[in-house]
Amino acid sequence: MSELTHGSTWQALTDHYYEIRDAHMRDWFAADPDRFRRFSRRFEDLLLDFSKNRITEETLALLLDLARERDVPAWIERMFRGDRINFTENRPVLHVALRNRSNRPIEVDGEDVMPEVNAVLAQMRAFSNRVRRGEWRGYDDSPITDVVNIGIGGSDLGPLMVTEALKPWGGPLRVHFVSNVDGAHIHETLKGLDPARTLFIVASKTFTTQETLTNARTARRWLLEAAGDDAAIARHFVAVSTNAEAVAAFGIDTRNMFRFWDWVGGRYSLWSAIGLSIALYIGMDNFEALLEGAHAMDEHFRTAPLEDNLPVLLALLGIWYINFFGAETHALLPYDQYLHRFPAYFQQGDMESNGKRVDRNGQVVDYDTGPVIWGEPGTNGQHAFYQLIHQGTRLVPADFIAAAEPQHPLDAHHRILLSNFFAQTEALMRGRTEAEARAELAAQGLSGEALERLLPHRVFPGNRPTNAILYRRLTPRTLGSLIALYEHKIFVQGVIWNINSFDQWGVELGKQLARAILPELEDGAEVTGHDASTNGLINHWKSLRGG
Amino acid sequence: MSELTHGSTWQALTDHYYEIRDAHMRDWFAADPDRFRRFSRRFEDLLLDFSKNRITEETLALLLDLARERDVPAWIERMFRGDRINFTENRPVLHVALRNRSNRPIEVDGEDVMPEVNAVLAQMRAFSNRVRRGEWRGYDDSPITDVVNIGIGGSDLGPLMVTEALKPWGGPLRVHFVSNVDGAHIHETLKGLDPARTLFIVASKTFTTQETLTNARTARRWLLEAAGDDAAIARHFVAVSTNAEAVAAFGIDTRNMFRFWDWVGGRYSLWSAIGLSIALYIGMDNFEALLEGAHAMDEHFRTAPLEDNLPVLLALLGIWYINFFGAETHALLPYDQYLHRFPAYFQQGDMESNGKRVDRNGQVVDYDTGPVIWGEPGTNGQHAFYQLIHQGTRLVPADFIAAAEPQHPLDAHHRILLSNFFAQTEALMRGRTEAEARAELAAQGLSGEALERLLPHRVFPGNRPTNAILYRRLTPRTLGSLIALYEHKIFVQGVIWNINSFDQWGVELGKQLARAILPELEDGAEVTGHDASTNGLINHWKSLRGG
Repeated sequence: MSELTHGSTWQALTDHYYEIRDAHMRDWFAADPDRFRRFSRRFEDLLLDFSKNRITEETLALLLDLARERDVPAWIERMFRGDRINFTENRPVLHVALRNRSNRPIEVDGEDVMPEVNAVLAQMRAFSNRVRRGEWRGYDDSPITDVVNIGIGGSDLGPLMVTEALKPWGGPLRVHFVSNVDGAHIHETLKGLDPARTLFIVASKTFTTQETLTNARTARRWLLEAAGDDAAIARHFVAVSTNAEAVAAFGIDTRNMFRFWDWVGGRYSLWSAIGLSIALYIGMDNFEALLEGAHAMDEHFRTAPLEDNLPVLLALLGIWYINFFGAETHALLPYDQYLHRFPAYFQQGDMESNGKRVDRNGQVVDYDTGPVIWGEPGTNGQHAFYQLIHQGTRLVPADFIAAAEPQHPLDAHHRILLSNFFAQTEALMRGRTEAEARAELAAQGLSGEALERLLPHRVFPGNRPTNAILYRRLTPRTLGSLIALYEHKIFVQGVIWNINSFDQWGVELGKQLARAILPELEDGAEVTGHDASTNGLINHWKSLRGG
Repeated sequence: MSELTHGSTWQALTDHYYEIRDAHMRDWFAADPDRFRRFSRRFEDLLLDFSKNRITEETLALLLDLARERDVPAWIERMFRGDRINFTENRPVLHVALRNRSNRPIEVDGEDVMPEVNAVLAQMRAFSNRVRRGEWRGYDDSPITDVVNIGIGGSDLGPLMVTEALKPWGGPLRVHFVSNVDGAHIHETLKGLDPARTLFIVASKTFTTQETLTNARTARRWLLEAAGDDAAIARHFVAVSTNAEAVAAFGIDTRNMFRFWDWVGGRYSLWSAIGLSIALYIGMDNFEALLEGAHAMDEHFRTAPLEDNLPVLLALLGIWYINFFGAETHALLPYDQYLHRFPAYFQQGDMESNGKRVDRNGQVVDYDTGPVIWGEPGTNGQHAFYQLIHQGTRLVPADFIAAAEPQHPLDAHHRILLSNFFAQTEALMRGRTEAEARAELAAQGLSGEALERLLPHRVFPGNRPTNAILYRRLTPRTLGSLIALYEHKIFVQGVIWNINSFDQWGVELGKQLARAILPELEDGAEVTGHDASTNGLINHWKSLRGG
């Protein structure tokens, strides 16, 4: 048994789980009018209501014991002070430095990183101002109207999610994102664009990412077909990278290279120069407001007691469902169309961080780690997959996220949206008993066999756990806080599971095998070097291509 | 125990599971050079390779026994002949009639439905031709340039997914989709449009769907602000509905109402007039090619022996992982950017169909039913969540889907894409043993403690099951076959689980509670009629709005 599952708190939680697993939240709400007050917390204008969870005061106390037993406060401290907690890569984990608006010194190898961080922010401000004001000119002296971010994974999902979320703050520049190496992505994106007015950001830490460089080279060819002269490259391409040599070889002026550092993980990089497309779209003041919101959450995370600490509470609730109820997934359900890529963003954020089976001691764990993260915006999800959440055989813990005020003038729409937001958490908790279903069917005029036959299909077991997160408005600042909330939740879960949430060795093997296969696709020769399936697939592909 | 788990085949499968669960596919491939041939099947130019699954000949034989024991062939027959297999709604399930290009009579209540089906297709052809040729005119005599489909759930996800998938066949009309009641959705969509050139399709069977009618009324107001005269409504709005009265009351000419039937379920409706936006975008010939592809798969499903029947095979493999290995999710991974909404489409298709916990006899099941469906396009997913699939603690069965030929001129991109497609299924199956990882690290110059420390994190257990689906090109016909393949897979699983895959009572309770809450949001009065959490959330919302 591992240290984790061997601990006395884990055992106490296991016993407690068996005691309460059949209890219904409906009864707890009936018995305790104070349950909402007891199990909700505020951070600035954001409310976290976690009272619709399958927890009692005892559950929460035990989970907080677990957090203490696992040294969560010390690990928080380790991260913020720049310890090399990403030990498999021997790196500190300092996305919090990128948004450290207090400028409290954070040292790496005895040197404060804040001056460098601030220098890149100043470079981003100067550059984005020039482009936004039309002072930066294309090869024929046109101002830039469209920005295309070429990156993948962390160099794509964060900027894409944030620019979609903050559309009401966006413009006049348009932003586009090309990530997939599938040529369809860049082909469709370039269709509507004017080379003379398009600026490309090539975002790749190493400047060797296969997908990103393939797309960047195609974009360069497209530009040069129009511009003719290689000198145009420096006017239409900038880089976010640490590889100055490769950037220069591509044709980019290294003065227009934006640096970041090896202590910034890809999936935590939107706060760095990887966020350049965000700054171009919403302006640097709004980008800094985003950083400020994240910083405010960082300060809360560093200083709030565990029992009031929002990221810690979300993390512990996740542990409760994953490790005791056996939940395999977690749904993120923003009731906000602008947040439509929020689940996809934290699909990477969470699954790449905590999709690990080996602990910090090198042992294969004997407990489950990170869940599958998924979701789509409400109300759309209600008409798609909520059936399973309500009446399926799986327990799907879900976070409901919404703003009190809309970002558009259609207030009647917003009230309908919110009525659904409230009602779904109510319905998932309460369910509909057989007696209630029977009464409703009788009221509809059914009786006898017809009623009995339909009855079991109209029952909802309820007792489905949800968190509700409600804030005033999705401003840049609020979005910053919201993202940081989930980042730190993921960190806390990694600490409890004793895994390194900051490496991603699991992406290496596929890359390596793809490099071996690529040259085999260049000719018609039969492939025999793999297993029969991989050989068979490649050879079938060749036959379809030849036919 | 239920009939299903009580059956002798189920017991045999359980025993067999314990026998083979620790076996590694790597060893099976090494031992059997014929494994690919044995476990792959073709349908037209589509290859299904299921050899990278944790199955032996015995597994497959037992699973096929299960299909026979559960009467799958008889259920297929029941569906195609129009039996009321959706028994909780007392309806036949006849999306197959919508694409029955052979026109073999299919009777409902003694009457062949094919003449009606064909009449609506003729109406769609005439209408889409008029609009596409610029003969249909807006209120100021402009031709239509933009089509906005207003619908949600099945009236949105199918047309949206298909029009995205078939972009290379699309145009000159542009299509847009508004589904979410969140005002952000219609607000952002209408921003760039010209009322005089915009045609709205209001898609709602009952013409009472709250989200759809709210959006439709906002669209009508937007049109009338520009057009002034109510007569413009009939030039800019058409309906897909069965409620002629409500359609007329909205201001739509009922000659421009496209009907469908109560034997068409929402999530199976893209083949019906709900597909009007598809027909407008790709033209009616291409829409009929889509139907033909689905019909070809229908014929295969009806007539192929179970052991060669692609939907049956996919269904049985799913059962194997869900009910024996305990998998809770299933990933759909199209290596095709044009298919980026394919996972979201089958999130509804599968989870609304099989997210059920009560069987046809009204009993709560004692086995798991439908999985959580999720996924994003490759290669993007590789840089996001594949970490968890490779090295997490969960078994995530995954379908890899790709076309041999691209839909764009960037062939080098396509080879890189496909090298990743092949390599990932190889990597997931093979993994990387400790010995292999050790050798690689040593080759990189590591040794001693540094090597040992890193080693366990560089091991991949492999043995991750995948299906690979590879076809020549994503034409309308191929897409039709591909969609029908998954529809029938879902049907077969529902038959085996003895559930009704065609109702969706689980969406009712939330709707009902939302209707009760909506009027409570109209004023500042404190709400007290719900549980403390729902009251607390609503009152917090009111305080944020008032503050």
